[in-house]
Amino acid sequence: MSEQLVEKLQAVNNSAAFNRWAGLRVVSVAKGDVEIEMPWREDFGQYAGFLHASLVSGLIDTACGFAAFTVAGAVLASHVSVNFMAPAIGASFIARGQVTRAGRRQIFTRADLFAVNDRGERKLVASGETLLMRAEA
Amino acid sequence: MSEQLVEKLQAVNNSAAFNRWAGLRVVSVAKGDVEIEMPWREDFGQYAGFLHASLVSGLIDTACGFAAFTVAGAVLASHVSVNFMAPAIGASFIARGQVTRAGRRQIFTRADLFAVNDRGERKLVASGETLLMRAEA
Amino acid sequence: MSEQLVEKLQAVNNSAAFNRWAGLRVVSVAKGDVEIEMPWREDFGQYAGFLHASLVSGLIDTACGFAAFTVAGAVLASHVSVNFMAPAIGASFIARGQVTRAGRRQIFTRADLFAVNDRGERKLVASGETLLMRAEA
Amino acid sequence: MSEQLVEKLQAVNNSAAFNRWAGLRVVSVAKGDVEIEMPWREDFGQYAGFLHASLVSGLIDTACGFAAFTVAGAVLASHVSVNFMAPAIGASFIARGQVTRAGRRQIFTRADLFAVNDRGERKLVASGETLLMRAEA
Repeated sequence: MSEQLVEKLQAVNNSAAFNRWAGLRVVSVAKGDVEIEMPWREDFGQYAGFLHASLVSGLIDTACGFAAFTVAGAVLASHVSVNFMAPAIGASFIARGQVTRAGRRQIFTRADLFAVNDRGERKLVASGETLLMRAEA
Repeated sequence: MSEQLVEKLQAVNNSAAFNRWAGLRVVSVAKGDVEIEMPWREDFGQYAGFLHASLVSGLIDTACGFAAFTVAGAVLASHVSVNFMAPAIGASFIARGQVTRAGRRQIFTRADLFAVNDRGERKLVASGETLLMRAEA
Repeated sequence: MSEQLVEKLQAVNNSAAFNRWAGLRVVSVAKGDVEIEMPWREDFGQYAGFLHASLVSGLIDTACGFAAFTVAGAVLASHVSVNFMAPAIGASFIARGQVTRAGRRQIFTRADLFAVNDRGERKLVASGETLLMRAEA
Repeated sequence: MSEQLVEKLQAVNNSAAFNRWAGLRVVSVAKGDVEIEMPWREDFGQYAGFLHASLVSGLIDTACGFAAFTVAGAVLASHVSVNFMAPAIGASFIARGQVTRAGRRQIFTRADLFAVNDRGERKLVASGETLLMRAEA
């Protein structure tokens, strides 16, 4: 992956006010395969203190969108679905998004969300997928 | 709907740190039918300045969860899906969640998300659905 | 709805070998709103003798596709999701598909599937949605 | 995988009238990982002669259900979603279902559907996932 593409993706990430608030950062980039990370903060909590569904969905959606960006440039998500598999409790959260098919008009992606504990161990807590459209010229 | 149920729902809403940060509030409650509102703030923006997908998904998920709560008490979402139909731009956002079927173990719900402009006009910008499990005793 | 459009839709339906095998027929057509029906047959059964998930999904997908056709002509489904709410047992099955948003490139639809008993009473057994692309010239 | 489990799965498959009509057969079974196959027949076609969406969804749903069966015994699908990635054209179709998480009450699964040509080459044409409930005693 060119350094140029990594920089472009960081720039997209930093241009989003919500991503800055949430402390999202891009941790690895390959063609069609991106990881992002978000350290836990108290204000991310739902009623029981776990990671709020907004952020579970948002991390999956963002990882998918960034993976799509690496193969298709500007894209728009049409659909996202998320499976909540286990309570999202961790010191940090890592979402890995991957392109499963890049068509001429549409990009199909999927992502896994891992909770990371203090020892750096990952646990799968959610998975999901998005369907994106290439932005028009 | 009993005043007691409205108060319970407000209490659930207020117990979530993320909901407090986002300024979410319950605006109407009937059995299996709940509306929530979130006024726009700059830090909700994605890269183009529209409402971030995290919050689109989060409002739909929350409206669905609250609607399920009115028929089933404590619930846990297993799955959410969201359709992004139009750019989410507004002075405020209202999500209406409705229960479509309440089974003995599972609750099916759906929701619409409306952008509300300065004149109070609503525009449908997203829809979605969740599948929830009743919490165990 | 013009008679011409109804005839076009019947022709599309009849052109599909699977639809002919399944005995699918178009029962009502309005702009963005179509109902199809399929009388029960023994060879539609899953292991417990209820309507097989293939046909539950297929009826929802087809009703959505036909509804999209009434507003957009030729379309291709990219995504379908289905909620199985109750055992699909009936003398006949009716799926009603509706367009929820028709964009310039994409069409969003949803559908309900009803089991109909011998007295003509409908029971909701599944719901779903599809995302379709307009076919290219 | 015990021979006993393979036989049980074949028996479930054969007990479904639709599966017999469609010529579905179980081709490989491991714990949480099952492949099924369905040779092409003319009456599986949609209007353009490709594999009908009912069967695309049905193969994915069935592969997921069978994978869930290997870890949880009797299960019921609550939700299925399918991505249509490429035209489903082939001499045969193989769906591989895998369990992604088996909880105490729910099973999460995913599946890929491959079209197989005359030379035995596989092409990914669809993917999907299901959420299932363990059947109650």
